[in-house]
Amino acid sequence: MFNNILGKIKIASPLIHCITNYVTANDTANLLLAAGASPIMAEAPEETAEITAKSSALCINTGVLSENKLLAMLRSGKAANDKGITIVLDPVGAGISDFRLSNIKQLMRDIHFDIIRGNISEIRAISGEAVSQKGVDANENDNFNDETIELVKSAAEKFGSIIAVSGKNDIISDGRRTFIVKNGCDIMPAVTGGGCMLSALTAAFAATNTNKLIATVAAFCSMGICGETAYRNLAANEGNASFRIKMIDAMYSFNDVILEEQAKYEIR
Amino acid sequence: MFNNILGKIKIASPLIHCITNYVTANDTANLLLAAGASPIMAEAPEETAEITAKSSALCINTGVLSENKLLAMLRSGKAANDKGITIVLDPVGAGISDFRLSNIKQLMRDIHFDIIRGNISEIRAISGEAVSQKGVDANENDNFNDETIELVKSAAEKFGSIIAVSGKNDIISDGRRTFIVKNGCDIMPAVTGGGCMLSALTAAFAATNTNKLIATVAAFCSMGICGETAYRNLAANEGNASFRIKMIDAMYSFNDVILEEQAKYEIR
Amino acid sequence: MFNNILGKIKIASPLIHCITNYVTANDTANLLLAAGASPIMAEAPEETAEITAKSSALCINTGVLSENKLLAMLRSGKAANDKGITIVLDPVGAGISDFRLSNIKQLMRDIHFDIIRGNISEIRAISGEAVSQKGVDANENDNFNDETIELVKSAAEKFGSIIAVSGKNDIISDGRRTFIVKNGCDIMPAVTGGGCMLSALTAAFAATNTNKLIATVAAFCSMGICGETAYRNLAANEGNASFRIKMIDAMYSFNDVILEEQAKYEIR
Repeated sequence: MFNNILGKIKIASPLIHCITNYVTANDTANLLLAAGASPIMAEAPEETAEITAKSSALCINTGVLSENKLLAMLRSGKAANDKGITIVLDPVGAGISDFRLSNIKQLMRDIHFDIIRGNISEIRAISGEAVSQKGVDANENDNFNDETIELVKSAAEKFGSIIAVSGKNDIISDGRRTFIVKNGCDIMPAVTGGGCMLSALTAAFAATNTNKLIATVAAFCSMGICGETAYRNLAANEGNASFRIKMIDAMYSFNDVILEEQAKYEIR
Repeated sequence: MFNNILGKIKIASPLIHCITNYVTANDTANLLLAAGASPIMAEAPEETAEITAKSSALCINTGVLSENKLLAMLRSGKAANDKGITIVLDPVGAGISDFRLSNIKQLMRDIHFDIIRGNISEIRAISGEAVSQKGVDANENDNFNDETIELVKSAAEKFGSIIAVSGKNDIISDGRRTFIVKNGCDIMPAVTGGGCMLSALTAAFAATNTNKLIATVAAFCSMGICGETAYRNLAANEGNASFRIKMIDAMYSFNDVILEEQAKYEIR
Repeated sequence: MFNNILGKIKIASPLIHCITNYVTANDTANLLLAAGASPIMAEAPEETAEITAKSSALCINTGVLSENKLLAMLRSGKAANDKGITIVLDPVGAGISDFRLSNIKQLMRDIHFDIIRGNISEIRAISGEAVSQKGVDANENDNFNDETIELVKSAAEKFGSIIAVSGKNDIISDGRRTFIVKNGCDIMPAVTGGGCMLSALTAAFAATNTNKLIATVAAFCSMGICGETAYRNLAANEGNASFRIKMIDAMYSFNDVILEEQAKYEIR
């Protein structure tokens, strides 16, 4: 189903421009390199539009947000929209402050995002629901059920974007078709930046496949499978730090055969 | 003695707001997650007070300091003081420049810090002693002796804060009671950010225990024991980078039984 | 040939001031610590000149560049020139935007750099050749040949700096003598920050040896040998993330005997 997407990424080595946060930028860059993509992190408003215009995709991540980065995001987002370059939004901490939420909403008015990836709290926040987000890592009760699936579908329709929610079960919808991805493992929320890495990976996948919904599902399955592989490789005395290293390692050896064999998803 | 503090952290999952530096933020976040806490790094002055107000503790770290972060620190510090939220100060590089020292001193006038954690050079600097600090990692001759113990006690009395000094032997005092912690191992200063991680961990411990002096001692013992565990797990061809991973891993498996059994401290 | 340089670094523990980017700062700090040097990252224009003046070397890295960091770089660079402190420039992404290139050129007019280390695209860009740089990691076709060697030699003459180009074969020249370094391994470009780490390491080596050309060659050989060691220690299911850890580990155990035995270079 995924049309040799890993092979294509390794051949094209798409340049992925990330305007992101310093907590997880190193892991994000190494994960992109492991997958065969080429990362560039840049956030000076004086140069981001030019860099985006040379890139295959743009990933905007609102962790450790600042006024200056917001200006860079706006300029890059407009450049990407003008040139038809794929944009992923990761609305990190959307519910954590008024500043974060109002600026994310403004970005969503000024820029069209092809894909928005977050945890369920963040998607609730940008959808206008009252939330009380705790932290930025996916530690909330993220059971998916009919209500959350419906929320994701409506958000996708409302924003005209693919909405992709990470959790024990991931929910990915373009408003018409909805996928539930079941790959992954329990230790993943104990690593900071899992979501940031997945958003950037999704940008690389979507830059390399015209069907962006399938590309998003492929990215989520790939990250989940690499998590499962890392977990199997974890020794008894190893924990979240070794897991993080092994997850990126798993992506380095990952390929289309493993993806097709181990992807676990259903269509709703 | 430590009153099941690890168990309490894992249940409460306290949100720890870190205004910190980009060199060590990723390790700090992963260590907090390993211990069961929930990290958030945010430094935009427009949002930090609101985020602090939702947090269980605030950790202010002056590494890679900037004017903008100072404003965020001030606003968050005042919000924390208003609401009685625990604050830890890590005066990274206090003796390295006039800018650093004068701004740290100003923060200490405007904000009351429950706990100040640094190496002996940094504590000397904020206490008004002439220092010539070299670098920000704990590589100075940090032998503790009667003079340094007395310095820490006087600083604690002067500032009305718990003063916690990292070194081969740690010194922790509230001015009335003084603990010497003897856990840890020689390779620890070869990892950048050991101090930053310990400060954030102390914030998580102090957020979860009303006796902040005991909580600080518990955090120092815990970090030291995890270092000892990591060192035992180090293979012959491994060095500081593997040690860092294994130290965070050790925190992931750490618990109250290990803490009570392996804590090495004395009361002066 | 390298005159016990590692031993000297471990004894002197030179303070290396890095004005750098957040993507790779943690690895850079840990690599410097592994080699025996003492890192400090600081970028507030209010303090950088004072910190540089206390340091043994300054490393200026233009990744994730900003207006504020440019001011810090200028002040630190002038302080270093005034005091005769070694400066290394890593012109990360020189060809990626007009903002990056024009500001790097301005820095090169205002500051004299002892050593400039980059990949071949970056050196072409600062030399005034038309380039179309893709990303910041060394993934371009970096075959060295007579043309690239000549380019490096002319750039060294033109700028009065040692020019050091990383690639499958490294080219290092002061305009009079040119070294080709052949250490290293194929997985190295799959780790982000390999170049950033090498630039900071070069600063530490050059701070400790009056012959800066030989010091640069020593730093390149050392990094390459540590890469080879890490690659030999890599298990079948390990990838770029484990490689990065093992490369820093290798530096932690590295010494002058290994350097002299395993260095592979030729003089042109």
